[in-house]
Amino acid sequence: MPAAPNNSDDPIGPGPGSALAEGRPASREDGYVLDRDLVAKVCDAVEAGDEADALARLQELHAADIADLLEQVAPERRAAIVRLLWGGIDNEVLVELDEGIRDEVLAILHPADLTEAVRELDTDDVVYLVEDLEDDRKKAVLETLDPADRAAVNRSLKYPEDSAGRIMQTGFVKAPPFWTVGQTIDMLRADDDLPRQFYSVIVVDPALRPVGVVPLSVILGNPRPVVLESLMSKDFHTLCAVDPREDVAYAFNQYHLVSAPVVDGDGRVVGVITIDDAMEILEEEAEEDIRRLAGVGGEELSDNVRATVRARFPWLLVNLATAVLASVVIAQFDAAMRQIIALAVLMPIVASMGGNAGTQTLTVAVRALATRDLTPTNALRVVWRETAAGFVNGLLLAALIGAMTWLWYDRDVLGGVIALAMIVNVVAAGMAGILIPMGFDRLGIDPALASGTLVTTVTDVVGFFAFLGLAAVVLL
Amino acid sequence: MPAAPNNSDDPIGPGPGSALAEGRPASREDGYVLDRDLVAKVCDAVEAGDEADALARLQELHAADIADLLEQVAPERRAAIVRLLWGGIDNEVLVELDEGIRDEVLAILHPADLTEAVRELDTDDVVYLVEDLEDDRKKAVLETLDPADRAAVNRSLKYPEDSAGRIMQTGFVKAPPFWTVGQTIDMLRADDDLPRQFYSVIVVDPALRPVGVVPLSVILGNPRPVVLESLMSKDFHTLCAVDPREDVAYAFNQYHLVSAPVVDGDGRVVGVITIDDAMEILEEEAEEDIRRLAGVGGEELSDNVRATVRARFPWLLVNLATAVLASVVIAQFDAAMRQIIALAVLMPIVASMGGNAGTQTLTVAVRALATRDLTPTNALRVVWRETAAGFVNGLLLAALIGAMTWLWYDRDVLGGVIALAMIVNVVAAGMAGILIPMGFDRLGIDPALASGTLVTTVTDVVGFFAFLGLAAVVLL
Repeated sequence: MPAAPNNSDDPIGPGPGSALAEGRPASREDGYVLDRDLVAKVCDAVEAGDEADALARLQELHAADIADLLEQVAPERRAAIVRLLWGGIDNEVLVELDEGIRDEVLAILHPADLTEAVRELDTDDVVYLVEDLEDDRKKAVLETLDPADRAAVNRSLKYPEDSAGRIMQTGFVKAPPFWTVGQTIDMLRADDDLPRQFYSVIVVDPALRPVGVVPLSVILGNPRPVVLESLMSKDFHTLCAVDPREDVAYAFNQYHLVSAPVVDGDGRVVGVITIDDAMEILEEEAEEDIRRLAGVGGEELSDNVRATVRARFPWLLVNLATAVLASVVIAQFDAAMRQIIALAVLMPIVASMGGNAGTQTLTVAVRALATRDLTPTNALRVVWRETAAGFVNGLLLAALIGAMTWLWYDRDVLGGVIALAMIVNVVAAGMAGILIPMGFDRLGIDPALASGTLVTTVTDVVGFFAFLGLAAVVLL
Repeated sequence: MPAAPNNSDDPIGPGPGSALAEGRPASREDGYVLDRDLVAKVCDAVEAGDEADALARLQELHAADIADLLEQVAPERRAAIVRLLWGGIDNEVLVELDEGIRDEVLAILHPADLTEAVRELDTDDVVYLVEDLEDDRKKAVLETLDPADRAAVNRSLKYPEDSAGRIMQTGFVKAPPFWTVGQTIDMLRADDDLPRQFYSVIVVDPALRPVGVVPLSVILGNPRPVVLESLMSKDFHTLCAVDPREDVAYAFNQYHLVSAPVVDGDGRVVGVITIDDAMEILEEEAEEDIRRLAGVGGEELSDNVRATVRARFPWLLVNLATAVLASVVIAQFDAAMRQIIALAVLMPIVASMGGNAGTQTLTVAVRALATRDLTPTNALRVVWRETAAGFVNGLLLAALIGAMTWLWYDRDVLGGVIALAMIVNVVAAGMAGILIPMGFDRLGIDPALASGTLVTTVTDVVGFFAFLGLAAVVLL
């Protein structure tokens, strides 16, 4: 394998571009994991009060890597680094921080440093920074912005949380359809306040409604006299400022958008969303599903013990109720278990296999709903498939556990009882795993959040009831 | 709430741009879910042999939506649509299909249609289409490409599966550092074979090694005489063709890249990867983790029953072994359970709460490893946090279940026994949930794949052993 070009010790590296990679590891095996030595050296320098050395090391890193470093060090270290070094650190770091750490850093930061940071950032980044601040602090920060930016930030803040209006960048490049390529280029050259990054010119009518989009590559590839109207793409995608952010992420991913105009209720362009923001949302939405399926809330890796317990205990409490319910079912059959203690030994197998099969189906269903692959068109077929797959898997597991039980215990019929209970429970698991999330989805409840507990409740109750009940009828 | 501008019945819609939204639902509640009526109408038209009507309806849709439609209809319908309508369908649809359906459609497709499709597509899309074809069919398809494209596709195919070299687009725009903005624009205008989309010009040295990147917006914002060298960004990010695709996705997400040059072993630019590809990878990687955590393999929603069983049964089998192991532990205490049947009734509670707590920790750990937030810098602190959080959660659950048991059963000591077992098991769950995935990660095994079963094995065995063992010692 050839040496990776973003290694700092690579002689054929990308030259000036390698600055980005300096703090990254020298060996490919570590991938992009933040270099432990570098972190240690920065911390040592801060502890020794060697401001210049610490700053020099930090400044080699990309803002996103400095944010990672701040997230990964202990809270006292973090506070020390922020207090000692903030003046020399790129303000972009603030935008890269997780929300919890962002608020921690904002609380430490000197008001003057914060207002300076805010003045340097794009309006969408300012929105991210101030949206959770207390009102008086938010007001104080916004007052330092110039009036146009302040108006833009305030307008974004009026849109609902997690809507397209909160995410959009209010600076964008627009032009009327009758402009030529030449006029557009001249306008761009004359404008000294261009957005930091943009990928297309939005073509608008006199009422500021978008009528087309021209990618910059198309403008560059055509002669000066060509008019934008003849170049503009007819199948561009428009977002509405009140659209929820998961719709934004879906549209970018589905239609391979790079940027999309955002319009207000009157259809006028008020901003633009670019794909890097959509990518972040897409990742966060998948992350949220993973966490909700496992009963972990919005916690972050940097949370302390108290925050972690607070995030997780409610879900454990709900599951305790479920577990107690299962025990109540078991208790109904204590006479049967007293007579045949093998029932107590074997019963967790039936319940546990049902739980596993149910979780498999549930996970597929929750993600298919999130990615809009499970729709009324294929719902019936998927429900049928899950039921049939549950039956086949149940049969296979039943044959195995039935034979094992028959070999393990003397009672011939016990093997048949556990086999039958296994089939019943794995089929129930498949049906619960698909129908419960579909039901929650129809009710407008996030299926990832609520389904898991309900599915395992079903598989526990059905599992214990089928096995112990059948045994009580057949064996006693 | 204002009407969404991409509704087809919206009078203030985006005008010509709304074509994209035609087949999409008229009501916001359905979000972007594919319109069921439209699907039904297309299917009816196909069944009635009304080719023109079916095609007219399909052509209103974006390629990605046609792909969704093909994925969601029944296999016979899919074959009928492809056979009847392919000539009129955008070849991009092929690239938008899931792998399973892609192979199904490729098998139906007439060789002439396939070669025509391949000639129209970008080289990276051709790679995606042919990489899983049998060798003779692949060769036949590639022979119809023009020599330059064929060479590019063959070079991509030589890189390992799931590497940057497979994903990259081999068409890109390069320029030497001494070129001016004017020269660059003239070159772009003269080139009638520009890549379909590009966002920057890669500045290269005479050996074709990248020395800088100039975004198109910067080229457009500067006067003709300025040389590229003075405009080019010094902190661009280079990818290596052999880089695994998860590193590609990480780099785009971490550094907010829009496009990045890909270099070969000698540091020469061989292609470029754009953010829309990286976004797809990022989503697929998160998806893979979700599925692996639940023991669901690479299955797709359109899989049939046999494929579903094949994907899921192996994991159920592993878990059956785990469940049997837990039963073996329980069987050691059958004498104790025979004397106190309450033990059999209560034991699943201890095991189940351990399983839930372990899954919470495991999920956080697996994702933190995947997103490279869990590193040697914070590993110790996170292990400590998980252990402490397990202890606190264990204490709270122990108090509740201890009190309930004391109220439910006459034996005072039983409440103490179950409380103590609960603390032991929830602490064990926290430690197993963090240490097991970290261990697998260090061994180079995907922690999402292997950890779940091991963690629940630990919580089952520890749970049953702690509760029954303690009861046997204290109560008998």
